[in-house]
Amino acid sequence: MLAEFSVVTVGKGEGMGDQIAKVLKIVDESGLPYKANPMGTVIEGDWDQVMGLIKRCHQEILKDSPRIVTSISIDDRPGKPNRITEKLKSVERRLGREVKK
Amino acid sequence: MLAEFSVVTVGKGEGMGDQIAKVLKIVDESGLPYKANPMGTVIEGDWDQVMGLIKRCHQEILKDSPRIVTSISIDDRPGKPNRITEKLKSVERRLGREVKK
Amino acid sequence: MLAEFSVVTVGKGEGMGDQIAKVLKIVDESGLPYKANPMGTVIEGDWDQVMGLIKRCHQEILKDSPRIVTSISIDDRPGKPNRITEKLKSVERRLGREVKK
Amino acid sequence: MLAEFSVVTVGKGEGMGDQIAKVLKIVDESGLPYKANPMGTVIEGDWDQVMGLIKRCHQEILKDSPRIVTSISIDDRPGKPNRITEKLKSVERRLGREVKK
Repeated sequence: MLAEFSVVTVGKGEGMGDQIAKVLKIVDESGLPYKANPMGTVIEGDWDQVMGLIKRCHQEILKDSPRIVTSISIDDRPGKPNRITEKLKSVERRLGREVKK
Repeated sequence: MLAEFSVVTVGKGEGMGDQIAKVLKIVDESGLPYKANPMGTVIEGDWDQVMGLIKRCHQEILKDSPRIVTSISIDDRPGKPNRITEKLKSVERRLGREVKK
Repeated sequence: MLAEFSVVTVGKGEGMGDQIAKVLKIVDESGLPYKANPMGTVIEGDWDQVMGLIKRCHQEILKDSPRIVTSISIDDRPGKPNRITEKLKSVERRLGREVKK
Repeated sequence: MLAEFSVVTVGKGEGMGDQIAKVLKIVDESGLPYKANPMGTVIEGDWDQVMGLIKRCHQEILKDSPRIVTSISIDDRPGKPNRITEKLKSVERRLGREVKK
């Protein structure tokens, strides 16, 4: 399944770059396929892989924030592999050109 | 922590009442505190309780849908118990009256 | 259409009760049908009514927060009126009992 | 402000490539800065630009779907320009390397 997630800190400073860097370090070291974007990180794996990774990120950020809001969006379509790259490629084939990524 | 989730079926019929009924049956039988609303269900528990319950709902709906989109929003503020009722009550105290629920 | 929204403040204090109270005051005075829950507020109306109301709430909270994260989820099914109450009622009819709200 | 949005069709086929292609065509022609990812599209502009664009996409997809679920996540931090590229760059500076995008 594909999942996008983001972690927002409440009651800390206005910037979240340090927290996002911590999240992307954990995601990168997990070995799961991922793509970062300005609003969140998309990962691909089975439920336990994906949720285990998000749990680690959530709990790491919670270590020095009094409150966090984590959003997760899952697109689960069994039998379709490698959707983290194929989903947009199939759109680009329809459009006959690349989109901005 | 508090979490709200919803499950949307893709590639099935236009209505989702049967699926929402299945989800609420699983949630109700879990014993976790919950509140249903027209756009999702709010539950309260620790990470593994909450995510275990959402996983069961997700996988039940996936049994007869070719694709589903599950959205989860988590508000985690350690040390604050019973937020599923207290959060809105503290807002109502500020407003000096009840809000519609 | 039905829409649920929530506003999260970043770079302010850990609590958000004052901000949620402001939002619910604006929502209540708008006259649109609404239901508050511990994670957000569900409203019903056409696109411009719903988005106009969320814009007012968003901009009010932005007045004294350096950064806010607003989430909106829309369920649009034309031709189905009064879904803010009917959607859960149709689920309760399937279950043969009321759910917790 | 930055906003990410996605449109999910309910009561249509299992695939959504045609719909996503329509959305990205509208987004691309709008002239607003955007970045597509496997779970949604991030755009940058003021409230009316962003919401006007999402409204056009939402209504285009609604033309031939009986029901759609549109999700919008907004990160509004006034006074910070060009966040659609700068937000991840500031994370990459912290990490000392590029992330996968």
